[in-house]
Amino acid sequence: MLDWNLINFIDISGTFVFAVSGVMVGIKKQFDFFGVIILAFVTAIGGGTLRDILIGSTPVSWMKNEIYGLVILSAVPVCYFFSAQLRKVRRTFFLFDTVGIGLFTVLGVEKSLDFGLHPLIAVMMGVVSAVFGGILRDVLSNDVPLVFRKEVYAFACLAGALAYLGLSYLPISTVLNEIIAISVVISIRLLSLWYKWSIPFNPR
Amino acid sequence: MLDWNLINFIDISGTFVFAVSGVMVGIKKQFDFFGVIILAFVTAIGGGTLRDILIGSTPVSWMKNEIYGLVILSAVPVCYFFSAQLRKVRRTFFLFDTVGIGLFTVLGVEKSLDFGLHPLIAVMMGVVSAVFGGILRDVLSNDVPLVFRKEVYAFACLAGALAYLGLSYLPISTVLNEIIAISVVISIRLLSLWYKWSIPFNPR
Amino acid sequence: MLDWNLINFIDISGTFVFAVSGVMVGIKKQFDFFGVIILAFVTAIGGGTLRDILIGSTPVSWMKNEIYGLVILSAVPVCYFFSAQLRKVRRTFFLFDTVGIGLFTVLGVEKSLDFGLHPLIAVMMGVVSAVFGGILRDVLSNDVPLVFRKEVYAFACLAGALAYLGLSYLPISTVLNEIIAISVVISIRLLSLWYKWSIPFNPR
Repeated sequence: MLDWNLINFIDISGTFVFAVSGVMVGIKKQFDFFGVIILAFVTAIGGGTLRDILIGSTPVSWMKNEIYGLVILSAVPVCYFFSAQLRKVRRTFFLFDTVGIGLFTVLGVEKSLDFGLHPLIAVMMGVVSAVFGGILRDVLSNDVPLVFRKEVYAFACLAGALAYLGLSYLPISTVLNEIIAISVVISIRLLSLWYKWSIPFNPR
Repeated sequence: MLDWNLINFIDISGTFVFAVSGVMVGIKKQFDFFGVIILAFVTAIGGGTLRDILIGSTPVSWMKNEIYGLVILSAVPVCYFFSAQLRKVRRTFFLFDTVGIGLFTVLGVEKSLDFGLHPLIAVMMGVVSAVFGGILRDVLSNDVPLVFRKEVYAFACLAGALAYLGLSYLPISTVLNEIIAISVVISIRLLSLWYKWSIPFNPR
Repeated sequence: MLDWNLINFIDISGTFVFAVSGVMVGIKKQFDFFGVIILAFVTAIGGGTLRDILIGSTPVSWMKNEIYGLVILSAVPVCYFFSAQLRKVRRTFFLFDTVGIGLFTVLGVEKSLDFGLHPLIAVMMGVVSAVFGGILRDVLSNDVPLVFRKEVYAFACLAGALAYLGLSYLPISTVLNEIIAISVVISIRLLSLWYKWSIPFNPR
């Protein structure tokens, strides 16, 4: 398995970027402070929460470590005070977002397999972990979920999850498998960006 | 109890018909492939999933048997390639749909009673199993849930659940009870169709 | 801890007032009987249900005591037949509503702490218990959640939850702590009403 320090770094960065995406939608919709915070949480932890509820892993994972809550809350002042600067680092954000969903997908598959679920169900839970935060964000904002119309995002996760599953039957190390699967997610998103299959930022 | 082969046949058929209803809404709303699949799943297994989460039966039931996932996925190509033919078999679909919700209602009541819940709560869970898939489908599609305006559908489930509960206190066999309760659901729906209480297809 | 008779009285009254709020929205939206009942349930028990699901306390609490279901159902005929009289007792309703959310907040914090969650997560769960019923009501009605735009309501719960947490580190009795925390919620709502920070009735 990947080094825990690296996993934690990607995990926390991804959570932060997801939370920023929620805050941005909340500000655009002119929600109040409280609505913005709810959207930040729902976007950042909604996918993993749904996965945990469905497989019966409660209390859900973000509740067991307060760092997630603090990182998500920190996205609010960052967005309010540094929105101009945030726009300048869009590429960095896109990178973290992409690496983040890759990691979330892989961790979702692994956790579901650990719970003894069928491999294809585990693949589904990997995708759910990565995309349902955005779906719940859009439902709460009274929009049709964006991912229903920009499917490259979900397709990248599905391809990564299937890659992970397929490779897990080969005699390669887990860490190599994780790296390849995350790379699949990243590659498809970058290719889709390159060939204009989808819109770069905020596509969750 | 009803023969498991028969239960499985109705269960799978009902799941397929529910999935088709989700795919149809997704196509009408011009969702992408991924959105259509999510809607198919949510419609087909949303009600039973909510029931399982509420009563604490996890992993939720459709995750324990991959046949459900495969049946739901199969609804997508069927709808894309055979939509004209599907329209011709509307009556058959309506039949499977109706028998399906009857079965889902009864199975929901039975499972909740097995979990030691109060009989009236079990009746509620029977109705939830049958109708919440459609409610979640409509919430995700950004519509007001259809069942909130076409209540005959829910009323048929409620009557079937109450019939099952009432008969369970009488000295009749479980299988007879199940058949009567499902017949109550079917009769009310057919009567409502006959007397134009509601719209025949896609009323979930 | 507060006397159980008193807790039960506030709890049941609060549940009833929440249910009335759901019924009112359903009637205004011209939902059918069934939709109105669903909205009544979702508003009254949605927050506590989400909390229970997230922390893994299943079957969720309202399922273990049928009194909640009966109280919620009773809100439907009351609203249909006594809507004129209900308008006359708006102040009484506002009072029960306010005391109710105070109690729900405090009970949510206590239950989460009992489950061994981090104090800040427990505070969050207290707020979730009090406000998510209204959020789910609005999502099902296809509205943007009102609380996202009228944040005083949520802010009062947050202040009450933080007060309860802070005081729990001091050598005062639990019952005194509960009374103070609920008073904080009530005070902020009354002040917000006085100074027109928010709209008095139906702000959930």
